[in-house]
Amino acid sequence: MSDLSIGVDIGGTKVAAGVVDEQGAVIDRAQRDTPDGGATVTEAAIVEVVETLRARHEVCAVGVGAAGWIANDAATVLFSPHLAWRNEPVRERLAEQLDAPLLLVNDANAAAWAEYRFGAAQGQAVIVCVTLGTGIGGGLVADGQVYRGAFGVACEYGHMTLVPDGRRCACGNRGCWEMYASGRALARDARELAEESPVAAARMVELAGSVAALSGPVVTAAAAAGDAAAATICTTMGRWLGRGLANLAAVLDPSIFVIGGGVSRAGELLLRPAREEFSHSLTGRGFRPEAEVVGAALGADAGLVGAADLARNTTR
Amino acid sequence: MSDLSIGVDIGGTKVAAGVVDEQGAVIDRAQRDTPDGGATVTEAAIVEVVETLRARHEVCAVGVGAAGWIANDAATVLFSPHLAWRNEPVRERLAEQLDAPLLLVNDANAAAWAEYRFGAAQGQAVIVCVTLGTGIGGGLVADGQVYRGAFGVACEYGHMTLVPDGRRCACGNRGCWEMYASGRALARDARELAEESPVAAARMVELAGSVAALSGPVVTAAAAAGDAAAATICTTMGRWLGRGLANLAAVLDPSIFVIGGGVSRAGELLLRPAREEFSHSLTGRGFRPEAEVVGAALGADAGLVGAADLARNTTR
Repeated sequence: MSDLSIGVDIGGTKVAAGVVDEQGAVIDRAQRDTPDGGATVTEAAIVEVVETLRARHEVCAVGVGAAGWIANDAATVLFSPHLAWRNEPVRERLAEQLDAPLLLVNDANAAAWAEYRFGAAQGQAVIVCVTLGTGIGGGLVADGQVYRGAFGVACEYGHMTLVPDGRRCACGNRGCWEMYASGRALARDARELAEESPVAAARMVELAGSVAALSGPVVTAAAAAGDAAAATICTTMGRWLGRGLANLAAVLDPSIFVIGGGVSRAGELLLRPAREEFSHSLTGRGFRPEAEVVGAALGADAGLVGAADLARNTTR
Repeated sequence: MSDLSIGVDIGGTKVAAGVVDEQGAVIDRAQRDTPDGGATVTEAAIVEVVETLRARHEVCAVGVGAAGWIANDAATVLFSPHLAWRNEPVRERLAEQLDAPLLLVNDANAAAWAEYRFGAAQGQAVIVCVTLGTGIGGGLVADGQVYRGAFGVACEYGHMTLVPDGRRCACGNRGCWEMYASGRALARDARELAEESPVAAARMVELAGSVAALSGPVVTAAAAAGDAAAATICTTMGRWLGRGLANLAAVLDPSIFVIGGGVSRAGELLLRPAREEFSHSLTGRGFRPEAEVVGAALGADAGLVGAADLARNTTR
């Protein structure tokens, strides 16, 4: 029996797959764009990348990490904000096309597992992972288990209300954490600045090409290159990040927070203000051990590595 | 070996103890006021009620539930807002005086366990208990285990920030949930009303004896007796309760919320607006199963019953 497994990470823009060994190393890859056009073509794209890799490697299992709410049966996608699934029996439909043990898992849960097993949080008792992409993805690993909640939709903490009657979120509510700490928040802040003060935002707009094209990656790149306005935007976001972490610490009491996702490439520009605000906002500071706040170690691979490893551990 | 165990619930005003059988029934009781004067006399009071009961029953273990932060060693009280313990080896000092297997546990964690084992949440996959007293106590039981976090101080969610720069809390922060949903919040709202509109608050003030004596129990009693102003105060608090529950659902995804503590005696006056606001605020409503929101079943006994049962299960 092979010790290799395949992990697939399905995002809104691309389907990335990899063959992962027992040490978490990605030894082969396949990738394609996420197709438009509904559930059937999304599933066909998953099957395509998996079959591409299976033609080259014998594997023991396939783990599929999706940016959506996976029911506790690990078979049904209840809802996905960026994909075409609404209460769909995705595992069953994939299993008809893929003759391999198959696990379906939330992508941010998978990323948390990967950081726990092979990344920044190895050996930690309780790890809370915050994946900063367009929104916020979440994952909790406690005592060596992914925490899924009663219905499989735990750790959607990007939708904690941090600001009553605050900014409108795609989820329908107002003031969700991810409206203040995410790639979308960076882009919005940069566009607002560009409208109020074209001079201050000039370097970011130059990098982006236009005000409309200002994005999270542009802001973090400009900040890393020394642009003061971009750095200020990152600091503001870092503080919101820290406030949310303090709320999570009051609930979950982790030993470590791992901050991942594309936005986390801003590194210390984001993490330093996040740590300061976390420490400042933490209830009972001085009377309790404080969780570390660190950057993720596995970068963009965390989702697929975690999905592969969970599939290997779960299905055999 | 006896199947009986003793549970002790130490609050700011009284030390309540009971002998608890395997079905969660309290078959004997002892109680005294919480003494002033520091850790030593608090511990002496605990020893006194336990010895009173042990003189009458053979027991297999003693569980002590305290309104404080118990480190994950289940031996050290890190901090207690209303008791005289600051980083104290309480279990060791009690063990010197009590020749019995001894467990130290957070009182709200113990209450959650009791509701899971014998109360309103039997058989539930994930239960989140919210104990509304002077502040908010919390407990999470997932897959049959009390969740303690990395350092033993999980579920202090009364100190999630719900309102940035909101009301000042005893913990040092502003805008904590318990400043808006607790006995203290009811009392404050009633006093504010009495100052602004003595007529509207007349019945509550009459019940209390004076404006200064307005308290949570007075407000809930007045509301239960049909006073419109008191009912409005309960509704306002119920809505804040529901908002916080929605935040907790985004993180923890429980199958059931159990609302306990003295304030929960307001019953549906509190639970109805809480359910409405919870349902209104829940992220992803319509695409996920919704947790129930129910009142606690075990009343004031939950803490001691849970402490006794955890001690029996843990120490043998």
